[in-house]
Order: sequence, then C-alpha cells, then structure tokens
Amino acid sequence: MARPTLPPLLYADTATSTDQLYFSRVGVHDPFISFGVGPKRITVQSALEFGRIRKAGTFDEVLKLEEWRTRAEKRRSGRKAGPAEIIAELARAYRVRGFRVPDDFPTALFLKLRKLGVRVEPAGGPLFPEREFKTPAEAAAIREGNRLSAIGFTVTEKILRAARIKGRTLIYQGQSLTSERLRYAIDSAIMAEGGRADDTIVAGGDQACDPHERGSGPIRPGELLIVDIFPRVVATGYFGDMTRTYLKGRASEAQRKLCTTVRAAHQAALDAIHADVDGRSVHQLVVDTFTAAGYETKHGKNGSVGFFHGTGHGLGLAVHEMPRISGMISMPLKKGAVVTVEPGLYYPGLGGCRVEDVVQVTARGARLLSCHSYDWEIK
Amino acid sequence: MARPTLPPLLYADTATSTDQLYFSRVGVHDPFISFGVGPKRITVQSALEFGRIRKAGTFDEVLKLEEWRTRAEKRRSGRKAGPAEIIAELARAYRVRGFRVPDDFPTALFLKLRKLGVRVEPAGGPLFPEREFKTPAEAAAIREGNRLSAIGFTVTEKILRAARIKGRTLIYQGQSLTSERLRYAIDSAIMAEGGRADDTIVAGGDQACDPHERGSGPIRPGELLIVDIFPRVVATGYFGDMTRTYLKGRASEAQRKLCTTVRAAHQAALDAIHADVDGRSVHQLVVDTFTAAGYETKHGKNGSVGFFHGTGHGLGLAVHEMPRISGMISMPLKKGAVVTVEPGLYYPGLGGCRVEDVVQVTARGARLLSCHSYDWEIK
Repeated sequence: MARPTLPPLLYADTATSTDQLYFSRVGVHDPFISFGVGPKRITVQSALEFGRIRKAGTFDEVLKLEEWRTRAEKRRSGRKAGPAEIIAELARAYRVRGFRVPDDFPTALFLKLRKLGVRVEPAGGPLFPEREFKTPAEAAAIREGNRLSAIGFTVTEKILRAARIKGRTLIYQGQSLTSERLRYAIDSAIMAEGGRADDTIVAGGDQACDPHERGSGPIRPGELLIVDIFPRVVATGYFGDMTRTYLKGRASEAQRKLCTTVRAAHQAALDAIHADVDGRSVHQLVVDTFTAAGYETKHGKNGSVGFFHGTGHGLGLAVHEMPRISGMISMPLKKGAVVTVEPGLYYPGLGGCRVEDVVQVTARGARLLSCHSYDWEIK
Repeated sequence: MARPTLPPLLYADTATSTDQLYFSRVGVHDPFISFGVGPKRITVQSALEFGRIRKAGTFDEVLKLEEWRTRAEKRRSGRKAGPAEIIAELARAYRVRGFRVPDDFPTALFLKLRKLGVRVEPAGGPLFPEREFKTPAEAAAIREGNRLSAIGFTVTEKILRAARIKGRTLIYQGQSLTSERLRYAIDSAIMAEGGRADDTIVAGGDQACDPHERGSGPIRPGELLIVDIFPRVVATGYFGDMTRTYLKGRASEAQRKLCTTVRAAHQAALDAIHADVDGRSVHQLVVDTFTAAGYETKHGKNGSVGFFHGTGHGLGLAVHEMPRISGMISMPLKKGAVVTVEPGLYYPGLGGCRVEDVVQVTARGARLLSCHSYDWEIK
C-alpha cells in the first residue's frame, strides 16, 4: 500500500514492537518516536533515556523530546503537544512528505496525524521486508538462541535420567518431579547463559495435546513429555525455538510409532526445503506422511486431534514472523529466510509428540541453525 | 471519543497488549479477536488454541476461527477472509452496531474495517478505565510482585555482605562481583518463586546516572549501586516494582547526604498521597525537597543531571500505566489507583540514588503494597 520510497515512522516501545527493535537496535521500555530520512535513522528521546541511547550509538541522530515538544507547543501558541504534534513538527523540519508506518501503528495516533495534515500510510505488509532475510550476524544470533534451547534439553535429559520411577510419579532429589520444577531448571540454566525463556512448555500426557499448554503438576513415567523451549538472547533480542519429546520409562508400541512417524515427517520437511519451494507443499508433505502412517486429523466440538497447526514459521526478533509453512497459505520460502520445522501429532489418551528445529533456506537446501540429539526414551 | 456504550473489540496477543490480557485473563501468543456483546465476553480461537482457552474458562463464548473464516469466505464467494472480514461477519451475526477499540489498535486493520462498513472508534484514552482502580485481588497480585522484588533485595544484601573488598573490586565466591552476576542471582531467585524479572537494573557509579541503564561490569566498593527490580508474577500477569540503592564499603559524606535527601523526598511524597491529590503537586514536593537541599537539575548537551524523571506511575498488568505522578501533567490520584513513588538524584562523579515503593491510594492516605528495609550501607 505505502510507496516504498516513503521513509519509515515508528511510535512504539521495543518490548512490544519488533519493528522498533529492528530499527533501533537498543531496548527502550516506553513508546518513542523513530523515523528515517534518506539513509539516516533518527529518534526522539526524553531526558530519562537520552544519554543512554546516545551512548548506544545505533541512531545517526538522537533528538531531545523536551526541545521538540517546546517547538511544537510554540507553533500551537502554547497549547500542549503530544506525539502527533511533535511528529508533525519533525516532518516539517526535516521536509518529509510522508511516512510509511507498520500495519500495527496505533490507530489513534494515525488519525491525529492525518488531522494535522501529515501523510501516513500503513505498509500493507512487512514494514521492513528485509527482516525476512537473515544476515550472517542474524543467523548467528538465532543459532545462539538455539544453543540456549539445547542447554534446556541437556538439563531435561540429565534430570529425567537421574529421576527414579515410584508408582505413577518420578522422584528427583527426594521430591516429586513436576513440570514446574523441570521448567525452572531449564529456564534458570538458560538465564545463566544470557537468555530469557518465557513460557517454556513442559507438558506431559493429555496436557501436551493442547500444543500451547505450558504444563503443570507431576510428570508421569510412561507418558510422552513435550518440551518446547524458545529463549530470547538478551544481548541481541533474537530467539531460538526448538522442541523435543521425551518419555521416562518404557514406551508402548503405539507411542513408539507416534514418535517415529513425527520424526520421519520432520526429516521429510527438512529435506524438502530449498529456495523458492512453496511452504504449502512442504506442509502437505508432512500431512501426507501422517496420513500414510494412518494418523487422522479430526476437528471436534471440544478441540482437535491429529495434526492441526502449521509446519513452521519464521523466527528472528519475534518468535513468530514471516514466512509461514502452512496449509492455509501458498508462500514461497526465499533464500535467506529462517524458519522452524515442527510437525506434531496429538491424541488424548496416547499423548502428543512434536519435534522442532530451525533452518535457514539456501539455494539448494536448508542449513540447520539448531542441533540436538533426537533420543527420547529415557530408562 | 468512542461512545462508552460501544462494546470493546481487540485484536492483539496478550504479551504485547495488556488490554487484551485484562479482557482475556489467559495468555495467548499470537494476535486473536476478542469482543464484548452486552455483559458477554467472546473470543475467536484457532484449532491450536481452542481447547486450552475453552478450559481456561475466562470467556463466555469461545468461537472457532476456522468456522468463522469459512462463513466469511462464503459471503465473499470464496475469496480469502482475514481478521477484518471475520470481524465484519461477527458484527453482523451478533448485531453489533460498532466497536470501541484501544488507541493502539492496528491502523491497517482499522482502515480495512472502515472499508467493510464496520464502525470502529478508538477509545481516546483507556479502553477499560476501570483498570486504573485495583480490586483487592489485583492489589494482592501487585503485593505478590513486590514480594518478589524484595526477595531480590534480600539476595543482593546477602551477596554484598559476603563480598570482600579487594582494591577497586569486590570478590564473591572467588570471583569479581559484576552487575551481571548479581542480576543473575536476583532474577533466578525470583524465577524460583514464580516470577519473571526482565531487565532488572543493577547499575553502579556513573552507569546509574542513566536511570534506565541496566548496568554491566565489576561492582566497585565505595560506589552507589542502584537496584531496580520489576518482576511479573507469572500466574497473574501483575507486576511489582521496587528500587533500593546500596553501597558496599564506606560512603562519603556527599553520598550520605544524597541518599538521605532522596529518602526524605520519598517519604514526603508517600505522606502527601491521598485520594484526589494532584499528582503534579506530589511531584512538586519532591522537586522542592531536592531544591531546598541544594540539588540542582540541569539539562546539558550530553544528558541531564539532578532529578529528571517523573515521581511515579501506575502499576498493574503493565509496568507503566495510568495514572502518572509527574511535573508534566496535572492528574488527580484517585482512590484505588496503585502507583510507584520513586524519586531519584543522579550526578556523574558522585553517582545515582533512587528509592521506590508502591502504594494504593486510599481516601485518607496511601497503603503500602511493598515492604523492604531502607538500610543501604553494607560494610
């Protein structure tokens, strides 16, 4: 929608807007103005943030909010100036004829800017399409995120190995092993290495059949346990995202077949990825693998069983970003894109299994940015 | 702007939109539709989330995204339907004549809805003004957040006490004590108690003079150390927010005077708060206390020194929310509001000092929702 020549304008904090973080490359907790003029990146910061942002050195110019507010208020004969009036003042001073804004730009601010005569156009898609293509430094940052995920799996395996089966519970260091305890062990190990893992999934048995259920209560021997770890690297803001499924004790034949099938679908999808392949065809390959093995997907009144989520999604400064590998939409995977590959099967009674890795799309294939063993049965 | 009778409409995830979290009371990582019809709260969820959200029981109705997408696509003779078309379909089915949306509602979606003839009006202020007034359950959740902050201070004091001064460094467990190590000790202790502390500030010496600098490198004896901890309680989503300033070794007279003055201003502000007092007058009291003690505030080319941030802000599902205690704006503190009180002084060379607690405004005063000692010199 927006003409690509219009310079970008953002008004958001970096915790909620990954576009703002991508543009700013420094964390700021309250919403602030940033914009481009030609190749220059400019921001407006309050006295509270000014010195810190200037030192960070990621902007070409750091302007003082208080000064620009005063300028805007002068023009308004002393009436209060908020973000809209300050942006209008900046557009005038920098002779910008309009801005392109992210699709999630705040509506109230958009309407005020229009009223003030500032041309503002939503991007109608990604504000920075180049975000989809990861530079070597970005790929390395994502690889670091996945290293943190793998640390979580190593912790998990160590604890499951050390745990003792006692009836329907696992005893670890004298106490019942719960999803909460295992999650804390994972998340604190990741924190010690410079990451933040929020909402790590440690879900066993039927709990795991809701793919976004975090999991709670005792971990049971003989039940499948999905562990999905997507930590953010604090230093860079980039995420890792990996999943492994475990079982402490002896798996049944049905559980074994489930896990073997998911891993086969996972490998088939990894093998199928290369530049310009349609994400939908990669997803279809997973669906076909499941169907061929006799696993049906059904949507009922109380939820779904089988395989009912996408095969993968882009990963970067957001856990979910472009592109998608999904049956919902035809979308070619472009060279340089970084995507997860995470097929799963979920049947209450039997349990759930998901395996997830991260790859960067190359001309001829897919380069793994994640690495950890697929061993899952822990005696 | 929006007529208060229009029902609310949200399209956001709960990690970035606290309005969505307030309305939904359950965490969902991808943007989703939720809206009100009379007293009913309704949401639309994909197969991936449907079962989990239904079990959470926080909505009166959970609709299936796939069904409503199909309905919307039928009306469009098979053309693709996105969130806008689905919302239009819902508005028709539920006979809603329009929606009020948060001011940060995504602009692109707003424009599409208008094009589809759906009336959408930004709230022009808080979408849920009642968020400012905390119920007893909300106050208890914030108190729990502050209990987690206080755990962080206890850890800090224990480590500073145990640390040994060696020249310009502190030795703790055989290694130099850094901001990073102390932050990890704080954040992991909070995690063990069910909280998430992101961006905890552990900033010493001149670093602390940028109030939002997180701090890095060795902690020095004889330097002021600002520790600002604002953890989220995972179970409820509510935040705590407290600050203490420490010094390991012997403080100079100038440092002592700085800390005594900040604490005096802090107490004066706490004493001045009651229902309907103007936040600006509370802030002015802090400014006057600093001026009377000879502390000047100056804004220079490279940043500011003295006192150059607000005295406090509302706290709840967001770290910064309504109301504000600031010199910038006249704003009465209403009964039931929960605010931080956090005066500070910052002078490179001397260091920074900030003390922060949280209170709920009552008819006659302010009820503390945070509690921890103010002892700061650690020998």
